[in-house]
Amino acid sequence: MKIDVLTLFPSMFAGVFAASILGKAEEKGIVQLNTVNYRDFSQNKHNTVDDYPYGGGGGMVLKPEPIFEAVESLLSPDAPKPRIILTCPQGERFDQRKAEELARESHLIFICGHYEGYDERIREHLVTDELSLGDFVLTGGEIPAMAMIDSVVRLLPGVLGNEQSSITDSYSTGFLEYPQYTRPAEYRGWTVPEVLLSGHHEKIGLWRKKQMLRRTLLRRPDLLDRESLTVEELRMLEQLKAELDDPNRDAT
Amino acid sequence: MKIDVLTLFPSMFAGVFAASILGKAEEKGIVQLNTVNYRDFSQNKHNTVDDYPYGGGGGMVLKPEPIFEAVESLLSPDAPKPRIILTCPQGERFDQRKAEELARESHLIFICGHYEGYDERIREHLVTDELSLGDFVLTGGEIPAMAMIDSVVRLLPGVLGNEQSSITDSYSTGFLEYPQYTRPAEYRGWTVPEVLLSGHHEKIGLWRKKQMLRRTLLRRPDLLDRESLTVEELRMLEQLKAELDDPNRDAT
Repeated sequence: MKIDVLTLFPSMFAGVFAASILGKAEEKGIVQLNTVNYRDFSQNKHNTVDDYPYGGGGGMVLKPEPIFEAVESLLSPDAPKPRIILTCPQGERFDQRKAEELARESHLIFICGHYEGYDERIREHLVTDELSLGDFVLTGGEIPAMAMIDSVVRLLPGVLGNEQSSITDSYSTGFLEYPQYTRPAEYRGWTVPEVLLSGHHEKIGLWRKKQMLRRTLLRRPDLLDRESLTVEELRMLEQLKAELDDPNRDAT
Repeated sequence: MKIDVLTLFPSMFAGVFAASILGKAEEKGIVQLNTVNYRDFSQNKHNTVDDYPYGGGGGMVLKPEPIFEAVESLLSPDAPKPRIILTCPQGERFDQRKAEELARESHLIFICGHYEGYDERIREHLVTDELSLGDFVLTGGEIPAMAMIDSVVRLLPGVLGNEQSSITDSYSTGFLEYPQYTRPAEYRGWTVPEVLLSGHHEKIGLWRKKQMLRRTLLRRPDLLDRESLTVEELRMLEQLKAELDDPNRDAT
């Protein structure tokens, strides 16, 4: 996969692209990560890429030319059309399903604005996707692009070892994860639940399943509604709800 | 404000902390950004910070000792207690309200895991907040910490100039932004809406208001429900809905 990032701040990406999974994926030749400073495509003598908005008002607006031309410099006529992604708070919410969808592409181009708005013609005539990380304001699209790139690249075949990929599997059950413990068995007087030390695999499995349901019920009941539960899970869930309703009972 | 980040990959932060608004905020002395490699707090000869989970299963789990002791090395007895934030997909969804809440603190500590789970005792006895960026899997907590730090720091007094802060204002209306245009007035045959070139401020204001409502209605109707609309906004909204229902009418 080829990933290009259009940004005014290429230096923000160096550390992120070199470290950890992204660095290894590039080393293995699975992904090619590239930044393009679209200021290089400015056509005026001051090298500006933004201008005042028509109709007045505060803020600056990214001009169409540098963005269109930077993107077009990355296209080749015989390659499949890339996904051209604008990171912006008005976009569709990025989630794991979107990551999986993008992981099937061969070329992604991310456009990162910085403070400014985008000239609407960029949205209308150039980009294929507008994606948002969530309902909060950031200085630019760079950090959202990093998040999306990381979550897409780790899905590419050969990127993750078995050890790490198992974590994804647990996420994809649709439940939150159960509590995890490692050594020491006692730390500052806080002990690990006995069942985990028992070596009794069936009991451990049941405890974990119940903890997953419990945490999901308490923190993200919306995830439970989206999933079709098994009969066993439904029974556990009813039991959990009864326990949580009863103030005299310890439901941990 | 003081912000410390516990991470195994301090190099990921260098470019992000130096660039743009975060770099300027630190230069101005408004924020102090610091990374701590918690591997330095490992107490075993191999410098490991994780171990196998009790009860079996794949993945590794971050041990409690290095995290507790790295955090405690950052506390001083006469300073107010910091917010200690775990970035993890099971946490509360980070949003602008949370950014505003954190911007009122004087000291934030972010704990970034990497591939691994966290020993549950870290959640129970150390952290004050578990925050999630959204429903997708990342390699580590580093990029979420960057996003949260950027959105918090830009809210601190003195960080943003007037030009940039106006964008926040428009976000905080509860609507998505209206389309923006800048020069050239015609680009590749695509023109700027005439009203924006008219100089007629009242008409421009009405057009923008209607576009904000339209975009929010089409993309994020959930935001409309959360807001108390004015009488004028409600009338515009009814008109928009009628226009969008009528296939023979152009609602742009």
